[in-house]
Amino acid sequence: MPETELWLTERQTPDLSLGIKIKETLYRKTSPYQEILMVDSYQFGRVLFLEGTFQTTERDEFFYHEMITHVPLLSHPGPESILVIGGGDGGTLREILKHGVIREAILVEIDRDVVEVSKRFLPFYSSFEGDPRFRVEIFDGIRYVQQQENRFDIIIVDSTDPVGPAEGLFSESFYQDCFRALKKDGLLVTQSESPFLHTSLIKRVKTSMEKVFPICRIYTSPVPTYPSGYWSFTVGSKKYDPSIPQRALEFETKYYTPDIHRASFVLPKFLKDAGI
Amino acid sequence: MPETELWLTERQTPDLSLGIKIKETLYRKTSPYQEILMVDSYQFGRVLFLEGTFQTTERDEFFYHEMITHVPLLSHPGPESILVIGGGDGGTLREILKHGVIREAILVEIDRDVVEVSKRFLPFYSSFEGDPRFRVEIFDGIRYVQQQENRFDIIIVDSTDPVGPAEGLFSESFYQDCFRALKKDGLLVTQSESPFLHTSLIKRVKTSMEKVFPICRIYTSPVPTYPSGYWSFTVGSKKYDPSIPQRALEFETKYYTPDIHRASFVLPKFLKDAGI
Repeated sequence: MPETELWLTERQTPDLSLGIKIKETLYRKTSPYQEILMVDSYQFGRVLFLEGTFQTTERDEFFYHEMITHVPLLSHPGPESILVIGGGDGGTLREILKHGVIREAILVEIDRDVVEVSKRFLPFYSSFEGDPRFRVEIFDGIRYVQQQENRFDIIIVDSTDPVGPAEGLFSESFYQDCFRALKKDGLLVTQSESPFLHTSLIKRVKTSMEKVFPICRIYTSPVPTYPSGYWSFTVGSKKYDPSIPQRALEFETKYYTPDIHRASFVLPKFLKDAGI
Repeated sequence: MPETELWLTERQTPDLSLGIKIKETLYRKTSPYQEILMVDSYQFGRVLFLEGTFQTTERDEFFYHEMITHVPLLSHPGPESILVIGGGDGGTLREILKHGVIREAILVEIDRDVVEVSKRFLPFYSSFEGDPRFRVEIFDGIRYVQQQENRFDIIIVDSTDPVGPAEGLFSESFYQDCFRALKKDGLLVTQSESPFLHTSLIKRVKTSMEKVFPICRIYTSPVPTYPSGYWSFTVGSKKYDPSIPQRALEFETKYYTPDIHRASFVLPKFLKDAGI
């Protein structure tokens, strides 16, 4: 008798899907903000889905979390205070706390259930449990940033796609609020979707961010479970060139190296042709 | 009434699948070597499947064809004679013939039906129709290379996955035959699967190639429709460092730039940790 197979499929675009064979469903709930689903899979270990899209997986999360964290943190000569907007799964926080220089990392996540389910089923939070430097606040990131001034060295926007709760995180007014919340040599980094599938979004993010920050740069990384497997990040910086690592790496990584850091800012011809 | 949707899905691994919504099936045949399927899709235009795996698509082929061609060709100061093993779809041949310095490009494809269906349904061959510099031979690439000596500047192995007809293209004895078929400053490049999913295969290719060639280097590129969206190429070189472009780019590209060329050789930490 053939084995019964259970597959979970994300429709990455209306015409493209990525599916994984799963062992079991661990958790499923519709929170006030989104549908939350945690499964255990054969290919990627445990996988968190938000609104039906791959958010993070045990096996490939390192590409995304290392690149969204270490590129801005190592471009700054002495970052002490970091704000993460979103990132409730805890992966970005884990990477931030590997930096000995950090004194304070505040995670502002709008959806309490994402934090709860991640603490319960993903290994990220347990790796820095008891570290006195971090704090999780369940709050709207947009409103949180509006209330801050000259406060953070780095802001990391570790958001879902720019629809629903994350839409406001891709606007010029949000970037202005981030600018004010940053210290005079601060950096903002945001995930900015797929270079291949969402070129016009990246162009829009860059155009908006350039109106606010004197330096604006884009870098890319593979992320196998994200649409096209190829992802972008956009940095707004007040002072430092984000493509140049300024500090030595003091811990082990899986994807990031100082050479990867520099190379990730080399953009393909089709992005240059699109004015990016 | 809901629209009827037709989807075509590749099982990229036993536990991972990539699916595309298709408009229609254009061609389907089982040749003596493999199952050949050509479809028209919404996301990627026309798509060639061989043995149920995405081989090439109109929309994302440029990543793969530019990187497998321009990296070795621009690392050589004056390549005149090129051999392609496999590559029956014609995309690599199209990229080779963009180089004015090339005098001869021979494509040796084992499966006549792949060439025929590609000429009929893909736009690659028609873009260089009438160019007197190329020749297509329907022949076993392994045996072809065995019969050559000191003949080619560059050999490009544009093969399917290392199972079935392409298995012998990943062996040390084949690399020895290529070494003999190359001129004294020649280069061999082979597609070598996903850095994320097939790390041990890449290690094996590199170990075998290092026994034959004095210089052996690996580079990577995004390829959205290949497993994990992240692909590798391995180069064996008799003389030139393949990571350094030696000639100027004299035509338009979509992905490749000289900076992308250099950056593509910067490898992630997990490959270094695996001895690659």
